[in-house]
Amino acid sequence: RMQNSRSKPCSCPSLKMREVASMYFTMVAAFLVILVVALQGSAPRQTDFPYKVPLDPQGLLELSWNVSYPEQAVHFQLLIRELHFGLLFGMSDRGEFENADLAVLWSDGHNSYFGDAWSDAKGQLHMDSQQDYQLLGARRAPEGLYLLFRRAFSTCDPKDYLIEDGTVHLIYGILEKPVPSLQAINVSALHGGLQRVQLLKPNISIPELPRDMKTMEITAPDVVIPSQETTYWCYMAELPEGFPKHHIIMYEPVVTAGNEALVHHMEVFQCTAAFDSFPHYNGPCDSKMKPERLNYCRHVLAAWAMGAQAFYYPEEAGLAFGGPGSSRYLRLEIHYHNPLVFKGRRDSSGIRLYYTATLRPHDAGIMELGLVYTPVMAIPPGEDNFILTGYCTDKCTQLALPAAGIRIFASQLHTHLAGRKVVTVLSRDGRERQVVNADGHYSPHFQEIRMLKEVVAVFPGDELITTCTYNTEDRSRATVGGFGILEEMCVNYVHYYPQTQLELCKSAVDPGYLRRYFNLVNRFNDEEICMCPQVSVPEQFYSIPWNTFNRDVLKSLYGFAPISMHCNKSSAVRFPGEWEKQPLPSITERLREPGPRCPPAPGPQPAAPIPLKLGQLRRD
Amino acid sequence: RMQNSRSKPCSCPSLKMREVASMYFTMVAAFLVILVVALQGSAPRQTDFPYKVPLDPQGLLELSWNVSYPEQAVHFQLLIRELHFGLLFGMSDRGEFENADLAVLWSDGHNSYFGDAWSDAKGQLHMDSQQDYQLLGARRAPEGLYLLFRRAFSTCDPKDYLIEDGTVHLIYGILEKPVPSLQAINVSALHGGLQRVQLLKPNISIPELPRDMKTMEITAPDVVIPSQETTYWCYMAELPEGFPKHHIIMYEPVVTAGNEALVHHMEVFQCTAAFDSFPHYNGPCDSKMKPERLNYCRHVLAAWAMGAQAFYYPEEAGLAFGGPGSSRYLRLEIHYHNPLVFKGRRDSSGIRLYYTATLRPHDAGIMELGLVYTPVMAIPPGEDNFILTGYCTDKCTQLALPAAGIRIFASQLHTHLAGRKVVTVLSRDGRERQVVNADGHYSPHFQEIRMLKEVVAVFPGDELITTCTYNTEDRSRATVGGFGILEEMCVNYVHYYPQTQLELCKSAVDPGYLRRYFNLVNRFNDEEICMCPQVSVPEQFYSIPWNTFNRDVLKSLYGFAPISMHCNKSSAVRFPGEWEKQPLPSITERLREPGPRCPPAPGPQPAAPIPLKLGQLRRD
Repeated sequence: RMQNSRSKPCSCPSLKMREVASMYFTMVAAFLVILVVALQGSAPRQTDFPYKVPLDPQGLLELSWNVSYPEQAVHFQLLIRELHFGLLFGMSDRGEFENADLAVLWSDGHNSYFGDAWSDAKGQLHMDSQQDYQLLGARRAPEGLYLLFRRAFSTCDPKDYLIEDGTVHLIYGILEKPVPSLQAINVSALHGGLQRVQLLKPNISIPELPRDMKTMEITAPDVVIPSQETTYWCYMAELPEGFPKHHIIMYEPVVTAGNEALVHHMEVFQCTAAFDSFPHYNGPCDSKMKPERLNYCRHVLAAWAMGAQAFYYPEEAGLAFGGPGSSRYLRLEIHYHNPLVFKGRRDSSGIRLYYTATLRPHDAGIMELGLVYTPVMAIPPGEDNFILTGYCTDKCTQLALPAAGIRIFASQLHTHLAGRKVVTVLSRDGRERQVVNADGHYSPHFQEIRMLKEVVAVFPGDELITTCTYNTEDRSRATVGGFGILEEMCVNYVHYYPQTQLELCKSAVDPGYLRRYFNLVNRFNDEEICMCPQVSVPEQFYSIPWNTFNRDVLKSLYGFAPISMHCNKSSAVRFPGEWEKQPLPSITERLREPGPRCPPAPGPQPAAPIPLKLGQLRRD
Repeated sequence: RMQNSRSKPCSCPSLKMREVASMYFTMVAAFLVILVVALQGSAPRQTDFPYKVPLDPQGLLELSWNVSYPEQAVHFQLLIRELHFGLLFGMSDRGEFENADLAVLWSDGHNSYFGDAWSDAKGQLHMDSQQDYQLLGARRAPEGLYLLFRRAFSTCDPKDYLIEDGTVHLIYGILEKPVPSLQAINVSALHGGLQRVQLLKPNISIPELPRDMKTMEITAPDVVIPSQETTYWCYMAELPEGFPKHHIIMYEPVVTAGNEALVHHMEVFQCTAAFDSFPHYNGPCDSKMKPERLNYCRHVLAAWAMGAQAFYYPEEAGLAFGGPGSSRYLRLEIHYHNPLVFKGRRDSSGIRLYYTATLRPHDAGIMELGLVYTPVMAIPPGEDNFILTGYCTDKCTQLALPAAGIRIFASQLHTHLAGRKVVTVLSRDGRERQVVNADGHYSPHFQEIRMLKEVVAVFPGDELITTCTYNTEDRSRATVGGFGILEEMCVNYVHYYPQTQLELCKSAVDPGYLRRYFNLVNRFNDEEICMCPQVSVPEQFYSIPWNTFNRDVLKSLYGFAPISMHCNKSSAVRFPGEWEKQPLPSITERLREPGPRCPPAPGPQPAAPIPLKLGQLRRD
């Protein structure tokens, strides 16, 4: 629009700016072509890209990356083992190919091109007006073609994905035929898929490891991976008899070579000390042959998911295992993800524990924050964005935490299938202070234990507020809280030290207020909803006619009604005190969403005052 | 952050870009200093700035401006009759000096400076990182100093005000002493004030006027303006006996010279034809001496407010007056705003009507959209942002509008003192299509009839949805709908042609559903609210304990409950049909908020694909 006013000096800056910019960019482009050619030889070192995941189940595409927090940018190295006529790589909200932010390499059969593109709601590709996937180099090697590119976390291009902490859904697509142009690429016909990763790995310095450190591998013994998409494999291991108390101070994955794309995640659980022994087992976790007692092996010792690296405990703490009062029995669970249903693949993956007999100053502990597993917390059907909140109140932390506080250093977020976002915020004196852990693209299929970027100190009187966002658009009846896979949870397992007696700090709406809600809905809508006391809470939720009023009032209820607190030493033992009909924590000051940090736009004038020659101004 | 990575070619573009930009801006700054000096002579023509308002009550600051829609920018000419040591001019949400966007001219006693600044929530001034008030010139003249500057509607600087349609609150402040720097200016100690204007006047071509056009001045006869801040003056005029039907095709203000800063707004009303005659009157509208019958003179013929220009009817229509069935009596109402309580000022301002006996094809009409004046629509106390919505339903427009539709060409928004925003949207088949009129900075103290930028065609079956936003933070009890100044309204008077019988198309919540709400609140809160049927709706609202649940559920009620429609020929006569318990119009597609149009940020690479020298890509 500014180009129209040629004669006005005021509008020139932008115009000239563009000309200058255009010339400049031409230079940059020429330089880059040269760079690409020049790089055909020098290989970047492996240590330049410490993180690595296969993108596709065959491992034809392999992504390595690093994160520069000073630059607020990610550098990607993409290895394409068999390049056909190009490929798409990018990011989108939940792994869909629509509304995605893409780097595209394509060939028209003669020449190849690279560009930053975006796909619209129909999957149509468009060149981005602002090119934010910056190509740094391309290099042929015996194993394939390497592409190197850089992407700032935030570009301020509204078409671009904002790279945030937590899960990022990476997508890839392979071009099998030449395409005349970017616009000609048909996204729906692509061979492609998605891979979830934590792109912004925290930048944590590795603590010094003691000399007497030993290792123990908890690995599956030569499993034949079932030829089905999803298998949860269970294997029981046991510690030596009389194994004394040790501290686990680190663990890392052991993945059988060649199976990197199949081993999706693994966890080691310790069984309860309530039983003296557990049967041996090596088979699918959902098998009818699996002994019932294995369900009592749920205390997490270690957890790994694809793309994760070794997990280090902070130098002041270790996770206790062995010794009296702890079970010798461990359960290894491996999630094999085999969408191409390979047959006869053998695997001996697992987790290698690093432990020491020289106990560190503190035992680490795990605490459950969020919602109690109860049907009183429910989500109406057909919601795209329904929020439930669980509270750990000041009253509970006052009672259960030591005066010096605890330090949370890692967190594992957990919901069932409807979960889309999870966040825990620390509040003190009614003011939100710090995000403990947040995942705005949370997936129930990608539940890692994540080291926090910053250790969070929690003191007596602090509040920990965990908020989960659910999508129930595909459901026709209410989703209630509970243990079932079609029921929901909202949990943050926080890893902290020093260990306290507080194992559970969770809440649910007061059941009396929920009864008032059922009554109100009944009367307001003139409907015959059975209010007979023998009808269960889920049945009452299932019978509600879900009009906008009943939905809104349920939200209002959850935002208003007092809560029942579970401030527990173990899942069944509460701390002494009154925990029913507790007031909701009130928040007087919220944390501000960090705005995207954009490069400054070219202002039409400099940010300095303009001197005027007006002479002396008049005095009164 | 990018400066840290000197060795990486990828991060250079931004860095170099800044250097180039910096050099460039230095040049521009030098150029502007020269420009300012050069302009000390050539006077811009008056027609360059067609709109004019005094900023202060003494008229020492006079603002003229023009609007360039192609450039999306406003050019300002500010005349400072008595310059002391500088001045502030700017815009803010509602005329406050905090969080304001300011152009500042200041002198340290020796030199003068101009800059774009912003004030924070405490009123402290800061230089803007992006200078968007672009100084175009400064010129001394016998009458004072002229400053010329330009401002784009949207700058994308988050500190800047976004200039939108509707009311803009301009603020000014005069520096009485030299200041060493911008930061040293103490905003709270300034002599300053605010002036409301419609900055973005529509760009309407003036229709051709007929040769037989006559004029009639409805002016107050030599009024002595009372020496008080606010006076509404009433004067009764009458048309000649036997005056036949004419069309008013234009009107303009007649403001007595020297009183430009005192005459705030003026309206001419026609009295009802129900009475044969009306008494003469010339005095304050709130005087006890004012005859009661003057309250029956409420049909708007013409309305003007400060900063407005002549009002032209579209060439196909005129406003009928005179002739049988219409009253000869007119009431002129003038709002004098005299904050400096000048004494003895004489005034003969009023409105000049341009009319013709050659009737145009269509009579123009006025229709009331929004909410019925009833206490069932209420706003809880202490709300900063409470929304009420009034509907003109498809059923009513289906019945009352001609098949060819009507054309809305002007609109006057109306609320009482708590109103902060008003918007009317046209919806067809459940999809929002067009904003009829919107004011995001609406003030009840500045109610103009505004020409629409685009004439809006409304057809049978269309819906017109009027939404008002209220602030009741200063109130301790509920604000109910009604005629009183402390009760509320939500109305859009739309001016349209051809005139139809439909005078009122408004709604209110179904009173039965509101009773259910009172019951529900009563039961839910276990409170003793008197539900006796003899208690009035306002009394019931006043007795509600306003916790978050009761507030939320009232919002849910208004968003869910069926409505009672007033689809009326006149305020008491409904069109035939069933108008009670009507369903709320459902909207399946909303208009998108237009995002701010920013100048494109300098991308690190051009928006063209980068050619790669990879050779032929492999074929399968």
